[in-house]
Formats: sequence, structure tokens, C-alpha cells
Amino acid sequence: METKKVTFNPDKAEVWVSSGENLLRAAMQAGVHINASCGGEGVCGKCRVIVDQGVVESEQTDKISPADFELGVRQACKTIIKSDLEVTIPLESQMDRKVLAKERPRSGTWQVVTEIKLEDLIVDGKFHPPVEKKYLEITPPTITDNLSDLTRVIRSLKQTHQIGNISVDFYAVRKMASALRDKDWKVTVTLANSRKKGGKVQLINIEPGDTTRRNLALAVDIGTTTVWGQLLDLNNGEILAQSVEYNAQIGYGEDVISRIAYAQKGNGLKKMKDLVVSTINGIIKQLLKQHKVPVETITQMTVAGNTTMTHLFLEIEPRYIREAPYTPPMNYVPLIRAKELGLELADHVQVYLFPSIASYVGGDVIAGVMGSGMSRQDKLTLYIDLGTNGEIVVGNSEWMTCAACSAGPAFEGGGIKHGMRATRGAIEDFSINPTTYEPMILTVGMVKPLGICGSGLINIVAGLLEACVLDQNGKFKPGLKTNRIREGEDGWEYVLAWADNTQIERDIVITEVDIDNLIRAKGAMYAGYVTLLAEVGLTMEDLEQVIIAGGFGNYMNIEKAITIGLLPDFPIQKIKFIGNGALLGARLICFSNVLRTEVKRIFTKITNIELSENINFMNNYIAALFLPHTDNKLFPRVFERISCREKSLGEAVKE
Amino acid sequence: METKKVTFNPDKAEVWVSSGENLLRAAMQAGVHINASCGGEGVCGKCRVIVDQGVVESEQTDKISPADFELGVRQACKTIIKSDLEVTIPLESQMDRKVLAKERPRSGTWQVVTEIKLEDLIVDGKFHPPVEKKYLEITPPTITDNLSDLTRVIRSLKQTHQIGNISVDFYAVRKMASALRDKDWKVTVTLANSRKKGGKVQLINIEPGDTTRRNLALAVDIGTTTVWGQLLDLNNGEILAQSVEYNAQIGYGEDVISRIAYAQKGNGLKKMKDLVVSTINGIIKQLLKQHKVPVETITQMTVAGNTTMTHLFLEIEPRYIREAPYTPPMNYVPLIRAKELGLELADHVQVYLFPSIASYVGGDVIAGVMGSGMSRQDKLTLYIDLGTNGEIVVGNSEWMTCAACSAGPAFEGGGIKHGMRATRGAIEDFSINPTTYEPMILTVGMVKPLGICGSGLINIVAGLLEACVLDQNGKFKPGLKTNRIREGEDGWEYVLAWADNTQIERDIVITEVDIDNLIRAKGAMYAGYVTLLAEVGLTMEDLEQVIIAGGFGNYMNIEKAITIGLLPDFPIQKIKFIGNGALLGARLICFSNVLRTEVKRIFTKITNIELSENINFMNNYIAALFLPHTDNKLFPRVFERISCREKSLGEAVKE
Repeated sequence: METKKVTFNPDKAEVWVSSGENLLRAAMQAGVHINASCGGEGVCGKCRVIVDQGVVESEQTDKISPADFELGVRQACKTIIKSDLEVTIPLESQMDRKVLAKERPRSGTWQVVTEIKLEDLIVDGKFHPPVEKKYLEITPPTITDNLSDLTRVIRSLKQTHQIGNISVDFYAVRKMASALRDKDWKVTVTLANSRKKGGKVQLINIEPGDTTRRNLALAVDIGTTTVWGQLLDLNNGEILAQSVEYNAQIGYGEDVISRIAYAQKGNGLKKMKDLVVSTINGIIKQLLKQHKVPVETITQMTVAGNTTMTHLFLEIEPRYIREAPYTPPMNYVPLIRAKELGLELADHVQVYLFPSIASYVGGDVIAGVMGSGMSRQDKLTLYIDLGTNGEIVVGNSEWMTCAACSAGPAFEGGGIKHGMRATRGAIEDFSINPTTYEPMILTVGMVKPLGICGSGLINIVAGLLEACVLDQNGKFKPGLKTNRIREGEDGWEYVLAWADNTQIERDIVITEVDIDNLIRAKGAMYAGYVTLLAEVGLTMEDLEQVIIAGGFGNYMNIEKAITIGLLPDFPIQKIKFIGNGALLGARLICFSNVLRTEVKRIFTKITNIELSENINFMNNYIAALFLPHTDNKLFPRVFERISCREKSLGEAVKE
Repeated sequence: METKKVTFNPDKAEVWVSSGENLLRAAMQAGVHINASCGGEGVCGKCRVIVDQGVVESEQTDKISPADFELGVRQACKTIIKSDLEVTIPLESQMDRKVLAKERPRSGTWQVVTEIKLEDLIVDGKFHPPVEKKYLEITPPTITDNLSDLTRVIRSLKQTHQIGNISVDFYAVRKMASALRDKDWKVTVTLANSRKKGGKVQLINIEPGDTTRRNLALAVDIGTTTVWGQLLDLNNGEILAQSVEYNAQIGYGEDVISRIAYAQKGNGLKKMKDLVVSTINGIIKQLLKQHKVPVETITQMTVAGNTTMTHLFLEIEPRYIREAPYTPPMNYVPLIRAKELGLELADHVQVYLFPSIASYVGGDVIAGVMGSGMSRQDKLTLYIDLGTNGEIVVGNSEWMTCAACSAGPAFEGGGIKHGMRATRGAIEDFSINPTTYEPMILTVGMVKPLGICGSGLINIVAGLLEACVLDQNGKFKPGLKTNRIREGEDGWEYVLAWADNTQIERDIVITEVDIDNLIRAKGAMYAGYVTLLAEVGLTMEDLEQVIIAGGFGNYMNIEKAITIGLLPDFPIQKIKFIGNGALLGARLICFSNVLRTEVKRIFTKITNIELSENINFMNNYIAALFLPHTDNKLFPRVFERISCREKSLGEAVKE
């Protein structure tokens, strides 16, 4: 795709974006504030800009008079960039130049980066899905050649595809006679483990005719808060559909400890299992509906989840996970027939589960470490999985140490007044005019806001902090002249969107309680990095790379995560955001058997350290309960920006 | 056990039997006729004998006066042999010496012979059941050694028993946490394939404490007519219990063709499967009740059945078995979880099925060939499986050819007026006084007769033929002076037991229709041997051994089977009866993994020949519809005995 340059006047802020990008998003990316309070749906009419030069696609709306339209006035949120542009921000959106920071915040790495590209797997000759389909044209039997149907199929596999040493699933045998005769002895067989060294190839399904082009996989990440699913095309690696739902277990406790407690009561374990299976069944239905294919096209399923989620999904007693000495019943799980777990998939589908490392570091982390490529690099890397259960891994291809630190559900929108997951309508990006305190908000799908997702929460708190609306304790500064800051039922709050610009017909706010939850969540994570590094005799300075995973949808503004102290103040080019690492790993492993071996290697390399009873961890945690940190020296650039802004404000006030 | 000699006077017939044998059975074995019409229950009082010398156990009954008892009179059926004996047969039982054959029938091989003895397997170091139990004492976890439960189990297996490369069934994982903690980290694990070269060892179950002594297997033979089950102790090879039921499918057709036809209609296939599964579930219940153990003690199951029975059991479409070119859907079947088939066994039990050779030669035959040892011997052998579906194999350890010839259900008591399977109350042996035509009958369990089983039917027809009561067409000779031969509702019949001596309170008879059914059954078998041998360029003379299998209970009188022409007139020491060959194979394979490899070897060696459309087979069949055969030269000794008897009778009549 072509890259276009957009210059925003009067600040001359420049940004390079893809042709076809939305102009309001481009402004956000350039660090240019434009008032916009409807999330990008076009109903508030506040994001008026003047396109001075260049080509855009933008219709005249009722928010712009014909005369203004003639002059180049456009609604930024309704404008598509088609060439290099010069754009002027109107006065009402412009920030007082005096309060602008001298150092502009660097542009964050927004888009997900995935280390393993499918193309690379193909080039290496490693693109061999663990489940393959093979088309066969079989010689019909005669009275002199009346070998059994199954023998004919096996003979043909050997002759046509040089595949031998086959074992056959008996559900496939049941379908064989009619499948062979339905389309004149032309069939497609589904093979599991067809390229695995040593082991047997399993023939798990047979269909009449040539169905090789319909070979889909299902990748699922079972999170404590949310469950993600992707429908994948095993022929070309494409993601055909994606869906996300809250884990239905959430009604029985927000964290793993309360889920385990519930599972210990009466029929609780079965209930927990049924709830998550029903969540996944719902996701399967959505995915199939989105892509309009029948369930039989799915031939394999992979699941990544933390240790507790994995145990509950399999209906395995999890109580010893939470009782000292914290031994989970199992790490590795064998392949399981999906329907034995109650999943609404075809008879022959087997479920691959990532192994759990320890009671609080699960298969989701292994999936992310594998998916991110960390385990195949020499660079000393800090891998961070942000979620209700925060997990950290430090190491490289040679060694790895991991730890868990329970962050709570804030990063997934949990425990936040208007929190929601990163789906359509979630406020995901934010900017504030430090003079007028008017917001610029962007939502997922550019529609009227419905709530705030994890990445939105980080960006809002960072924005409020840098605009000196919040102090470093996370409290609103008193006496600011705006009706957006007010005392609500939960204490002080900032109104992100007025009721008439929302989908919920109530004001959407962020409260001091929400901010406090976020500070505790990021404090636990930061304390985790510092403590884990210290345990292996390292410090932040030794790191060569930071990889961040988390279910924030597709975007995360790394710079703003540094601003609140969630990430270390680290050269941005060394930080990589991979999105949902568990889902990434679950997806990639559908395509290559070689990666199953890599997972085993990671599992044997990695050692776990318990932080829960570590005194240093508690000290580090308390020190991190501040924005960005009690020790400003750890965040020199953030601190400089805040000081500078405060100074500018002070000067502006004096004038 | 000690062997004792019994001499029956006045004929001086001698027989060697085990101490503790019943005296009436000993007489039958010696070829000595004693009138006895209540099957051995003691109620008819006809089997009075005089014990002249030796020690017996025998109570005085109301059939014997104190004075007679004092003189040595005993009821033979109530007398146990304790030493060498001299016994006199009273006048009423004695046969006219003039009608005695000059050549006494040789004593048949009665007791089942099994070629593979478990002891031999142990000596060879081959006594490794595919499913083993291992006891483990596991180190409990601590905060510094908090590996998962599963890892601890695997580590302990390696350390204690040097068993590695383990995969784990997830049902076992589900039970692991509580099993480990129930008896203080002492557990017993159940392992499948623990000695198989190459493949993975599967950990399929875990139980608290030491349960290694409770490791049972279930061997099942699914016959078209009857289903046999045995409960086996894997620790010592003992048969703990045995049970048999008619296959519940029998209500939907007596032969495989009618079953297949039914399975093709609507829900018929599922119905057929459910019926046989419910039959097996009934047998499982009986076996557990007999031996008084819970179902969890059974750790593996093996099944032998013909091709159609195997397909119906697995709910696999059987229609192409009966449609030219007669290709069964499958030969080999993978291991299947028993509960997936609806069997009422523990979660972890897997079912091993013998592979089918062709549409009409199934896994029951492979089981018998393996179990009899034929496949490991150099001798040219004819293996005969007598049953509703008769199967024949000719060959040795180097090569084997097989064929099927549908005999019909007569050998299993089917299609016979008073036919029944070889269970308690079935008439299994028979002798007739050729002068008075009074019978001597023995039943299974020595109780009042209930009906006639397959071996009884053969012995009755042979006895009637040799006594010249039947002619060689199987018709009763006219004008014999006895009320036991009469015209019944189905034509001419012989009364084996009068109503008051039976359990059914009706006369138990054998009719000419029954005899005709038997002649057709044995004719099909005999035609099969001749035709199959001719196909491979051999004749009866080339054979070095004949092995006979069949569900006749534990006894078969080979001499009498020769008499009716069911078996070739062959030196008796070269004939071996192994009882239910399918059940024998299903039992033996529970004890040794090596035998699974042997089964594979047999499967690849054996070739199948279709007799159904073979013109020679039809000619041979018609020639065999005679007692023993239209060509008397094929049965010289039988013919000599009959001629001799006829001559004696003629002389007796003249006198």
C-alpha cells in the first residue's frame, strides 16, 4: 500500500500513513489534537478541519455548509486520505502553543508485529499443518481385487502421496464405505501428524470428492476474562474470521482464585467446564456464521490458556494450584477429541493444548513466547503478557525464567466503571486539549462510544497525566476550569463523552477509582519485571528487547504505556507489541508441526520463580503505585515532559 | 491329578480317568452304555451299577434299597471315582454282545487342547499383558520441588520401573490430583502398550494405593448366534468367570445376510449395534456378579468376531460385505474406547479387535489360528471353525489360504427343535442300546435335560447311525420295536427324554428335520475342506494335522464327528479340538503384546478364496449330503463299523 504524508498546520506536525487511512486517526497518530467526542461516527461534528492541499474522499454532511465545504472544510473522522495532504486545524481545536511540550511524544508502535510470518514457514519448507487433507482417486474393487475399502485407501495414500505408517480413527472407518461410493471412488482424507517424525499418521476423516480446499482450523485463547477465537485457512494461512466473548465463568469470580474456589464446591468443576465450553461453542457459531462455512470444514483446534483455565476447560480438579506448594495436576495434555469435551465440532476434530509451565504460568505464555519468536533469538528479551494474570518471561533462545504477577482485570476492561473489551464502540485512543480540557476520542470501528477498553484506559490516563489534569497519585488536580471534571457517585471523574454522543445514552466517564485500579495493575507488572530481573542478576539496562503481549485488540500505544509506568522507559525501537500472544501462538501452531517441537523445547528450557511470597516483589510493588513511579529517575523522559508541561502551564497562567 | 483305571464288566472295557471323575461320564468315555435318561441328575434311577472293587464316593439314594447298597449297587451318575475300580453293568443296561461292533469306536479327544500355554509365555519372557499395572510411591511436592502431579508420576515411572516415552490419557489426568493425595502419594497406574517396541506407552488410569493385584481383562467372542465372554486375571492367566448369551440380534435374522439386510433399513444399523452391545453389557454384568468384583477392575477388552459381527458392533455400514465384489469397509480397526461404543466399562478401557480377512472370513478365524498355534508350526494343517458361519484355513507357518462356507446355525443349536447352546441342561453326550433303543444321555452340569447343544446333536446322530437306527440318508429305519421312535408333528422323531425326566415337562426329541439340518451343515463344511484343498493342489492325504474349533462348550467327540462325516476320516491323534477358537485367541492376546504382532503376521500371510460361486464346491456339497458321505471309500472305518453292526443285527434277528 502506498504511503502518504500528511502535514497538520499550524503546528507543521507530519505523519506518514497508508493511503486510505482515516484523517482523524492520522491526526491522533501525529500527536495532533482535534476535538472529537463521538468516537469517529461523525455525529458530534467537532472534528472540522480544512484540507488545503491534496486529494481526499469525504462527503458533504449536514455538519458542514455547502459554502464551508467549498472552502475545503471536512469532518476529519469522515475523511479518507488519498494523497499527500496539507491540513489546517481550526482554532477551536488548536492547543495553546505555549503549553505544548517541547519534546513531542514519540509516535508509538501501534500495529501488531508478528515475528513468525507464515511466508517464512513456507520458504523453509516448514509449512506443514499438523492436519492435512489429501485427495485420492481410488481403483474400484472387482471380484479379483476385492481388498477392503480401508486397505484400498491406505494403498492409494502410499501410491499417490508416499504416506505410510497409518492408523485410522474409527469414526473415519464408519464413513468410509459410503464416502468412497458417493463420488465414484474419489475422496479426500484428513490426516493428522502427517509430517511428524517417527509417530503414526492418523487418518481421521474421509469425505466424498475433492474437499482439499476446505481445511480450516480453530485457534482459541481462553483468558480468565475474555475468550478469543480465530477461524484459519490451513491452505494459505489466512485468518478468515475472528470473534471474542467474555468468558462465561466471569459470573463466578473475576480472578482464577475465585474460580478455583467455586470449582471446589459440589458440582462446581463441571459447571466451570460447561460455562467455558458454552462460551467457545458460541464463538464457533459466530465464526462459522461470519465466514459462512459448515462446521465440518474445521479439522483441528488449538487452545492456549493459563493453567487454571486449562484445568477448568478439561474438568480437572484445580484446587492444588492454589494450595501450597502450588503443584498443578498436569503440564502436558494429550490430544483430546473435541466432542469428548462437549465442543460442537465434527467427530474427528482433536484439540491441541499448550502445556502449562507452573500453577500461575500457563500455556498462554508458552504460546506467546513461541509466537513472538523470542525463543529462537539470541537477544536478551523481556516478554510481558498483560492481562488479568500478568506473566513475565526473561531470557533468550538459551535460557528462560518466568514469573506471574496478578494484575487484576483492568487491562481487559474489568473493574472499570465503563470498562469493556476491545470491540466495536470501545474508546481505544484519546487526546486532550490541555487548555480547554476537551477530548479527542477514537473508538474501535469509529462509532459512538460504548465504553473504554484496556488500551483506551492506558491512553486516557497517560493523556490526563501529560496534560497535568491528573497528579502523579492519579488524582484530578483541583480547580481546573471545565465541566468535564466533576464529582460523581464514585468520586471525582472526567467525562469522556456526553450522553448524546454515546451508545448508552449516559455520560461515559473515567473515575479516580478506575485510575487507582489501573495504577495497581501496572504497579504489579512493573514490580514483576524488576523483581524477576533481579532474581537472575540482571537489570533493565541489560535488556536488548521488550515484547509486549495482551488482549488489547490490534492496537497499543507503547509510548503511553511508558507514560503511566506500565512499561519501562526504554528506547521505543526495542519494544515490540504482538497483540494477543496466546492467540498468535495458537494460530501459528495450526500451520506447522515443527512448532509443536519448539513448544516442547520451550517447556523444558523455562524455569518458574514464585513472586507471591517474595519480599522484594512487595517493596517494588509499593514503589510502583505512582504515575509513572515514585522514582522519577526510572522514567526520565516522562518526568521531563510532565515537568515541562507544568512549567508551561504555570507560565501561561502568569501571562 | 491322579489317573485311575476303571474296568467295566462283563465287557472288560477299560478307561483311564482322573480321580474324582463321575462314573457315568467314565462309562460314556469307555464306550460303555448304561441306560440313563435324566441327564445325570439322579432322578430316573436307571444308571444302577455294581461296584465290585475299589473306592468310590456315593450316597445311598431312595432309588437304591439298603440291601442293594450293601451289595455294592450305586447310581453311576451320583458316584465319584476315588481309586481303580471294577464295575459290573447290570443286565438291563447290557447290550446284546452279538450286536457289539468288533472294532470298538476309539475314544475321542474330548478335552479342549490349547496350543499356547500361558506358562510357556512366561518362560519365554513373553508374558507381558498389553495392559499392565505398576505401583508407585511418589515423593510429595514441596515449595522447592513443585513439579506438576503428572510430571512426578512420569518421573517415578522412569525411576522405579525404567518406563519412559509415556503419553497420558486425559481421563487419567482428571483423576490424578485426588488419586495421589488419597493414599499419601502411593498409587497404581495402568499402562497400555508398555512393552511394545517403538510406540508410546499410554498411561490410561491411576488409582490410590496398590491395586496391582486387581488387573482383569475381558475377552469376548461375538458370534452370529452366541456371544461368549470371559473374565481373566492378567496377573496369573486364570479364567475367573465365563458367560454366554444368545446374540440379541438373533431376533432380526439367524444368519449374517439377514442381519446386513436389516442394518440397511432406516435406523437398522444402530439397532443392530445397540443389540449386540446390550448383549455384551449383560455378559459383563454376569461375569462381575460371578466373580464379585467391581467393573473398575477390568482394564482391557479384546473382541473377536466374524466380519459382519465386527462391522455391526462398530456401527459400520456392512452392505458391501454382501454385494459383489464383496469388499468389507475395513480389515484393521484401531483401538477404541469401550465407552464410545456404549459398553458399560470404565472410562479408560480400550477395545482391541481382531482384524477381518475378508467379507466372510473374520477376526474370529485369525484369533483361532493364532490361539491354536497353527501359524507357528511347520505341519500342513487344516483349521476348521464350526459355527453358523463355517470357516476353513489350510496352510502352516509359511502360507495360509482360507475360505468360508455357510453351515447354518445347527452346530450352535439353531434351527433344531430342541436346540440350545452348550449351557447347563444341554444334552451333550449320548449312547444308545442297539437292542432296546434305550438312551444314555449326559447333560452339561449333570442336571435334567433342557435341550440339545451342537455337540449333543452330533453325538446323537452318530449314535443313531452306528446303532443302525438311522439310515445313511438320515431317516429312521422303519419297523424298529420301540416307543421312542414315533411320528411327531414335524415327522419322524426319537424321544431322548420323557417329559417327567426333563426340565421342560415335555418330551425332548430329535426329528428328521433336525437331522436333515445337521446333514446340510456338515455337508457344507466337508465340501469346503475338499474344495479349498483342491484349490491349492492338495488332498486330505497331504494333511499332517486337523484343528477343530467351535462353540460346543468344552467337549467334542471327534470320533462321532467323523462318524457323521463332519470331519475327515483321519487318524485321531492328528486331530485336535480347541473349543471356541475365537474366544481362545481373544483370551490369549490379553496376556501378551507379542501376539498382537503375530496377528498382524497372520493377516499379511493369509489369502482368501471365494467358494460361493465355485462350481466344484456345489458338486462336493451335494456329494456330502449323506451319512457319512455318498462315497463310502472316504470313510472306510465308519463304513466298516456300520456294515459290521448291520450284519450283527441281521444275525441277531435270524437267531
